[in-house]
Amino acid sequence: MTYCVAINVVSGIVLMSDTRTNAGVDNVSRFSKMFTWEVPGKRVLALMTAGNLSITQGVITRLKSAIMRSENGEEVDTILNAPTMVDVAELVGREMRDMQGRYRDSMEAESVSYNASILLAGQRRGGRQRLFLIYSAGNFIEATRDTPFFQIGEHKYGKPILDRVVRPEISLDNAVKAAMVSMDSTLRSNLSVGMPLDFALIKRDSFTFDQRRRIEADDPVFRGISTSWSDALLHGFDSLPSALV
Amino acid sequence: MTYCVAINVVSGIVLMSDTRTNAGVDNVSRFSKMFTWEVPGKRVLALMTAGNLSITQGVITRLKSAIMRSENGEEVDTILNAPTMVDVAELVGREMRDMQGRYRDSMEAESVSYNASILLAGQRRGGRQRLFLIYSAGNFIEATRDTPFFQIGEHKYGKPILDRVVRPEISLDNAVKAAMVSMDSTLRSNLSVGMPLDFALIKRDSFTFDQRRRIEADDPVFRGISTSWSDALLHGFDSLPSALV
Repeated sequence: MTYCVAINVVSGIVLMSDTRTNAGVDNVSRFSKMFTWEVPGKRVLALMTAGNLSITQGVITRLKSAIMRSENGEEVDTILNAPTMVDVAELVGREMRDMQGRYRDSMEAESVSYNASILLAGQRRGGRQRLFLIYSAGNFIEATRDTPFFQIGEHKYGKPILDRVVRPEISLDNAVKAAMVSMDSTLRSNLSVGMPLDFALIKRDSFTFDQRRRIEADDPVFRGISTSWSDALLHGFDSLPSALV
Repeated sequence: MTYCVAINVVSGIVLMSDTRTNAGVDNVSRFSKMFTWEVPGKRVLALMTAGNLSITQGVITRLKSAIMRSENGEEVDTILNAPTMVDVAELVGREMRDMQGRYRDSMEAESVSYNASILLAGQRRGGRQRLFLIYSAGNFIEATRDTPFFQIGEHKYGKPILDRVVRPEISLDNAVKAAMVSMDSTLRSNLSVGMPLDFALIKRDSFTFDQRRRIEADDPVFRGISTSWSDALLHGFDSLPSALV
């Protein structure tokens, strides 16, 4: 499986994904699920993918191919020249629909899950930073003030802490902490989600990546958060009042 | 959906279940999913059920009916006269298999999920306290020192805290706290799990229920744990080191 989380707060967007892919527990591989583009000063975009890998890789390949053709002078719609973030989301949704249309029936016939979902985050000069969740059918929803984060893949283990702490007004630092704690809980409880992680940070109105890095198992920042959180939970648990009446 | 958790520690067994059942979000009902029996001084048994309600109700009805027939002098195997806890688990598994055999094909034809699972916990005089998880096919597994708890239904939200704190040696009080915290996290993140809760506590070698009560939304103990845990999480989160390098 996969776990990807994107948090959209007032001061920017945090993205984090694991890198484990598996077809059964005996067939585990490592694939990055985060894809980033930037035209510094103009546009910054990130996609994270979950679900059937052949479908999501196909979508990414087609998006990249369009960019190459555009760079070679062809007139083609790309995620880098689409006028708005909604147009970008529609473009990603269209490629998703095309991939699904091509393989869905044959995959269904083999009882293979064709489900896939994509998180799209970014900002273009002249527009707001935005976060979208694109479904298998190519339709999509946008994160709002009420729901400022999206998760795809194995989302349940890491949801309770996000529900508790993520609000649009929290600092970028706290948004990163929330993403790390949410990922840490998922890693501990589900073998199909695994290190290393991909991490990206987009500050509002910067039109570039403030950070874009791989977090390995021995990453001091992630380990610091993980250890401190574990200590805080155990300490908090120890200080609960008695539950026996 | 449903969330049921059973924790088997050295000093006893803790059981907790919610009471929400739903066929779609517009068709929500309240059903107890915990069923208890005791022959004081001799045998104490609890079942918790998840999955298709018609299947699990059928299993419970048949178990109860056998007990009534036995009380009326008929020679019939029941969960109260089965020699060992494994025999009890096999009896429950057999009723599960019979119910599945009767309805599975017709339910499958209507694309209704026939999946169901049952937690069985208890102790008979002369044997150890034991905890079993019985699957749709009637087969079952037993909790061990390495895995001293089982969850059925919406288990993912509440699993991380159990993974962190539940060990065979923890006190019964801590086992109850762990169950309450796990349930609280699930209630907060998933609408299909809802108050009130059913709660039972079996102390080792007591052959009776130490506690067996319904926890309503205004229950002071559960609210105390829920509030303290929320405070501990927020405080712990606030005290995490910076995540920005």
